[in-house]
Amino acid sequence: MKGNVIVGQSGGPTAVINSSLAGVYRTAVDRGAKKVYGMLYGIQGLLDEQYVDLSKYIRSDLDVEILKRTPSAFLGTCRYKLPDIHENQEIYVKIFEILNKLNIECFIYIGGNDSMDTIKKLSDYAILTGQSQKFVGVPKTIDNDLALTDHTPGYGSAAKYIATSTKEVIRDGIGFSYKKQQVIIIEIMGRNAGWLTGAAALSRGEDCDGPDLIYLPELTFDIEKFTAKVRKLLEKKDVVVVAVSEGIRIKDGRYVSELGSASDYVDAFGHKQLTGTASYLANVIHRDIGCKTRAVEFSTLQRSAAHLASRVDVNEAFMVGGAAVKAADEGDSGKMVVIDRVSDDPYQCATGIYDVHKIANGEKMVPREWITKDGTYVTEEFIDYVRPLIQGDSPSVMVDGIPRHLYMGKK
Amino acid sequence: MKGNVIVGQSGGPTAVINSSLAGVYRTAVDRGAKKVYGMLYGIQGLLDEQYVDLSKYIRSDLDVEILKRTPSAFLGTCRYKLPDIHENQEIYVKIFEILNKLNIECFIYIGGNDSMDTIKKLSDYAILTGQSQKFVGVPKTIDNDLALTDHTPGYGSAAKYIATSTKEVIRDGIGFSYKKQQVIIIEIMGRNAGWLTGAAALSRGEDCDGPDLIYLPELTFDIEKFTAKVRKLLEKKDVVVVAVSEGIRIKDGRYVSELGSASDYVDAFGHKQLTGTASYLANVIHRDIGCKTRAVEFSTLQRSAAHLASRVDVNEAFMVGGAAVKAADEGDSGKMVVIDRVSDDPYQCATGIYDVHKIANGEKMVPREWITKDGTYVTEEFIDYVRPLIQGDSPSVMVDGIPRHLYMGKK
Repeated sequence: MKGNVIVGQSGGPTAVINSSLAGVYRTAVDRGAKKVYGMLYGIQGLLDEQYVDLSKYIRSDLDVEILKRTPSAFLGTCRYKLPDIHENQEIYVKIFEILNKLNIECFIYIGGNDSMDTIKKLSDYAILTGQSQKFVGVPKTIDNDLALTDHTPGYGSAAKYIATSTKEVIRDGIGFSYKKQQVIIIEIMGRNAGWLTGAAALSRGEDCDGPDLIYLPELTFDIEKFTAKVRKLLEKKDVVVVAVSEGIRIKDGRYVSELGSASDYVDAFGHKQLTGTASYLANVIHRDIGCKTRAVEFSTLQRSAAHLASRVDVNEAFMVGGAAVKAADEGDSGKMVVIDRVSDDPYQCATGIYDVHKIANGEKMVPREWITKDGTYVTEEFIDYVRPLIQGDSPSVMVDGIPRHLYMGKK
Repeated sequence: MKGNVIVGQSGGPTAVINSSLAGVYRTAVDRGAKKVYGMLYGIQGLLDEQYVDLSKYIRSDLDVEILKRTPSAFLGTCRYKLPDIHENQEIYVKIFEILNKLNIECFIYIGGNDSMDTIKKLSDYAILTGQSQKFVGVPKTIDNDLALTDHTPGYGSAAKYIATSTKEVIRDGIGFSYKKQQVIIIEIMGRNAGWLTGAAALSRGEDCDGPDLIYLPELTFDIEKFTAKVRKLLEKKDVVVVAVSEGIRIKDGRYVSELGSASDYVDAFGHKQLTGTASYLANVIHRDIGCKTRAVEFSTLQRSAAHLASRVDVNEAFMVGGAAVKAADEGDSGKMVVIDRVSDDPYQCATGIYDVHKIANGEKMVPREWITKDGTYVTEEFIDYVRPLIQGDSPSVMVDGIPRHLYMGKK
C-alpha cells in the first residue's frame, strides 16, 4: 500500500466494534499504510474535518489489546445518511477533497445497513468521477439482522451477555420463591428481529431451566394467550420467567410498549407516559393473576458490556476489520466483508466479500421454522446456530478493580 | 465438634452469599462435624422441616469452588421474622425439636439485620431453656448498612458491578454524542443507605470521567436544584451522567419514585402507574431542558452478577462463614462475625465477633462528611474506603459459553 487508510464507525455501538477498528489498524500498518486516520463520529464528523492520526492513540501492542476490549465506538459514531449523489453533489465533492488531501487509498466503514449505504454511494461516486479510492464496509450490529453474512460481529457478545444475565436473574428469582409466586419479565433489544431475545434460551442447561417463555417480534403477540400460558405455568412452578423483545406487537400493529400510554393520560409535564414492554406486561400479569411481578431491562449494557464479550466474537470482529483492509488494498470497492460459516461442528468461519449494492437495507429475521409452533420459544436449530458465537472469554484488563478501556480523552 | 451443623440463608441475596455457605461447609467438615445440614428457605423452611444434607450437593473441591461462584441463595432464602419468645413459645419448641432431632450443635445463619434478630432470639431461647446449641450469624447484604462491621460481604461485588456497568454505560453514551446532547440517569439500589449509589464514583479514572452527579438517599433531594445543575453541566459537555439512589426523597418525605404516580391517573387496569426514580427524573429533564434522556436501572443484576464478583469479597465471604463455625464450635452464641479493617493501605482485614443484641436493627448510613458539601458527589474518603473491596476477580467457570452454577435442581 502506497497511500493512507481512513476508518470510521457508524450506527449503534457494540462490545466489539473497537476490535474491528483494531483489526483495521493492525492490517493497515502491516500492509505498509503510511498513516491510518480515524474519522471522529463517522462520516458526519469527517464532513467537519474531524479526524485523528490513530498512531497517536494506539502506541503499542498493549494498546491494541486494550482497544479490542473497549466497548462502544472509540472514534465516536453517528447516524447520518448521505444524500443521493444526484441530489447533492457538493457533499461528495467535499468528502473527496478531504480524502485526496489526506492521500487516502482505502476508506473503511464499520457499521450496519445504513453504513453500507454510505460505502455504496461513495464507491459509486468514485467510479462516476474516475477517482481511485477503494471503499469497503465492515459489518457490525448486535441485532444480527444483516443479510448475506452468517452473523454479524457484536451479536455473539450481546448474546453471551443476555444468556449470562438471564441466568443470573433466574437464580436471583428462584432463591426467593418459598410459598410465593413470582413472574419475571425480561425485556431485550431488537425492534424487528428476535435474534437477541432468542439468545435468552442459551441460559438453559444442566444447572438452569432457562426462561419459560420467549416472545420474538417476528410473530404477532397475543396478550390473552400470554396470560393464559403464564397462569398454566404457575400451576406447576413458583417462578415463571419470560423473555420478550422490546419490539413485540399486537394484532393491530401497535407495539406492546405503546399500550401503556394508549389512554389520553399525560403526566404532570404534559407528556404521554411511556411504559416499557416488560413493565406493561408485568402490570397485566399482576392485574390478571395477582402474583408478584418484576420487570427487568438489560438496557444499553447488552451492547456495551465488553467485560463479558465472547472471544469468538472479539476475534471475528478483529478478523473482518483486517479482511476489509486487505480487500481494499487488493482493489475491491463497494463491497462489504461477510462471515461465512464453513462448518457447524466443529464451528469454523471464514471471511467472504459481497457487493454492497446487494446487501444494503435488507433485514434478516429469525426464520419461522426456528421458532416453536406455538410461538413461545426458539428451537434447537436456533440454539445450535447461536451457541458457537458465545464461546470463549475475553477478560478485561482490570486496573484498580474495574476494566481499563482505551480512551481518547475529551475530543 | 461432636455433633452436627445446620446453616441457612435469609434476606436479599448477593453475588457471594454462597461463598459464605461454602466457608461454613468447609470449616464444619474440617472441624469434624458429622453432618452439615442446609435449611431450605431459611428459618421459614426449617419450620416446615425443609432441609438437606449438604454433602449430597457439595461432593468435591470443585463443587466448593463452583458454589463460591454461584449467585443468589443456593439454599433458597426467606424474609421471616420470628415472633418474640413470650408471644409464641410453640414456634421455638418446634424449632428446637428439629434441632435436637438432627443433633445440631452449631446453628449458622447468613443474613442481614432481620437475620441477626433470629440469631438473637434463638440463642436467648436456648439459654432460657438450658439447651446447648450455639447460634452465630454471618453478615451479608449488598446494602452495606450493618453496624459494627467495617463492611458487609456482598457489598464489594455489588460495588464492582455498579462501577463497571456505570463505566460501560458512560462509554456507550459518549460514543453517540456528536452534535446532540444527552442526559443518562442510572438508578441504583439502596432504599435508605447510599453505599451502592456512591460506588458509581469508582468508575472515574484515567480513562473515564465517571458520573457527573451522584445523589444518595441520606440527603434530601431538590428537583429544581438538580435540573439547574444538569443545565449548567450541559453548557460545558454533551453527555451528562447522573447516578441516583432508588431511595432519594424530596423535602416533604415522598420518594421521587412516587411522584410519577402522584396524579390520580390509573392505567388501563385500574392500577396506579409507578415510574422508577430514574425514568421520572429523565422525564423532568426532557421537559425542562428538552434534550435526549435515557434511564438505566441495574435491577437485580447488581446483587446477582457473580461473573463480575470481587475476589476480595468472595474470599471475605468465605472467611466469615468459616469464622462463624469456629466461634460456635468454641462456645460463642448470640454473636455475629464482623469484619474489622486492620489497615487501609495496604488493605488488611480480620474477623471479629460481636454480640447480636448490640447489632440488630441498627442501620449504617454514609457519613455526612463522606458526601460533598453541595450533596452531589462522594468524597475521596468514600472512594478510599470502597476501592479495596472491589479488587481482584473471581472468574466464573464457563461451560459452553456461560457461567456454571451449583444447582440443587427442583426442590
